[in-house]
Amino acid sequence: MIQALPLVESGAADAAGLGPEHLALACASHNGAAIHVDRVRAWLSDRGLRDEDLRCGGHIPRDEDQAKCIICGSGQPDQVHNNCSGKHAGFLTLSQYLGAGPDYLDLDHPVQKAVRAVFEDVTGETSPGYGIDGCSAPNFACTLEGMARAMAWFANVGESTTRGRAALRLRQAMVTHPDLVAGEGRACTELMRAMEGRVALKTGAEAFFIAILPEQGLGVALKIVDGQTRGAESAIASILVELGVLDPDHPTAQAFRNAPIRNCRGIAAAQVRPGSAFS
Amino acid sequence: MIQALPLVESGAADAAGLGPEHLALACASHNGAAIHVDRVRAWLSDRGLRDEDLRCGGHIPRDEDQAKCIICGSGQPDQVHNNCSGKHAGFLTLSQYLGAGPDYLDLDHPVQKAVRAVFEDVTGETSPGYGIDGCSAPNFACTLEGMARAMAWFANVGESTTRGRAALRLRQAMVTHPDLVAGEGRACTELMRAMEGRVALKTGAEAFFIAILPEQGLGVALKIVDGQTRGAESAIASILVELGVLDPDHPTAQAFRNAPIRNCRGIAAAQVRPGSAFS
Repeated sequence: MIQALPLVESGAADAAGLGPEHLALACASHNGAAIHVDRVRAWLSDRGLRDEDLRCGGHIPRDEDQAKCIICGSGQPDQVHNNCSGKHAGFLTLSQYLGAGPDYLDLDHPVQKAVRAVFEDVTGETSPGYGIDGCSAPNFACTLEGMARAMAWFANVGESTTRGRAALRLRQAMVTHPDLVAGEGRACTELMRAMEGRVALKTGAEAFFIAILPEQGLGVALKIVDGQTRGAESAIASILVELGVLDPDHPTAQAFRNAPIRNCRGIAAAQVRPGSAFS
Repeated sequence: MIQALPLVESGAADAAGLGPEHLALACASHNGAAIHVDRVRAWLSDRGLRDEDLRCGGHIPRDEDQAKCIICGSGQPDQVHNNCSGKHAGFLTLSQYLGAGPDYLDLDHPVQKAVRAVFEDVTGETSPGYGIDGCSAPNFACTLEGMARAMAWFANVGESTTRGRAALRLRQAMVTHPDLVAGEGRACTELMRAMEGRVALKTGAEAFFIAILPEQGLGVALKIVDGQTRGAESAIASILVELGVLDPDHPTAQAFRNAPIRNCRGIAAAQVRPGSAFS
């Protein structure tokens, strides 16, 4: 949602008539289900843009129905199937608004310059560098504390600044459309539903999670050092329970905190569960 | 290959007329390509057995052609598609020879009792317990040193004992048929080919590798504590280079030691490489 702030605060989102569904997709790592792909296709089409204008590359989507269609059909996914295609539609929309060129992922493109400036502002740090994401977007580096600080800022924003109003809209879009932010069965979607809109939750590559808790005025940033996603879902669910925003008796909370690992015959051969650091 | 020792040393393999290809499959975690599936089907059929007699369960195989056939066809893999189906064909063959019942994975079944006895003998330890594998086989616990001891035993066996002769046959089957032990593109297969039959290599679940080095009389056991396979391939390749059995300039060695992580547009966004412990 940091990457989506320039889209909203610049006026580009309103000029393009984007609504909460677009904004949720602009923050999404989606499953590439029909609900995602159809909306991103329509978004691009409404802007006079095409799949070829994206720079994220394609991959077989997580959604089984869409994956099957592709595998048994052309064998080649479109770029809209990329889990980051909504974020990239957001970048493209901003680029159009700024009258900038097509390579919106270049570090010196106006879009990425705007993203870096916002990133450094909300984390409160000068970014020492960047990595390249699976979707080829630059990921600016920061400390874990800096990211948590940014999420706390999202939790506490008011309507008195342009940037604050933009953050509020993005946060609200995520909790209103949890299915668009990720998809069925995904931790972000299922846990946001279980918390009934009180918390915005987002995963990132290499075992990363953030959470925005407006009622508590708290931000959370979680990173599993080895990058293995498997422990991160149990950890974030446990943290949300400890912070009092996720009911430990909710089936979704139980499913993610103490997740069975089932083998080929459905036997629970192992379990992911919170370690001793959690009560 | 420890699990396959009873099959051979009991005389069951010879009574069933099994050759080196069968023995390689009895040690395999294969890709489920046609070369694997056709052979396991034929093996079962030759023994008057059917897919339903297996107890491993099915899964979509790693081989893309076979996976596509299933996904675009019935949608349901057979149990022979399970990467462990060769091991299970071995268990079934032994069970037939012993005149035992159909549930060959039960802990008190003669097959698993034989496996446990051999396991404790070659590791030199009394096993404190077991886990359940993805394929539902019991995996007896041991220390990492115990496993390395077992692999050193495999490296040094001679023909003077029944068990030693069985181990020799299994080891030779693996290095003669590296493609059957895993498959195209897999670390075990590609690295065994690069080492031209001098080393037997086998991966296990949760970031585990063993290597048997007969010319050096050495056994190797490797485990990445967090279970993340991603670092294990670079680590085992680095160890094999350090032990002088893998040419560091061989393209396969380079590909596994310093493995690029490519994103959706084929850009090398990151790299897996050996840490400072390796020269």
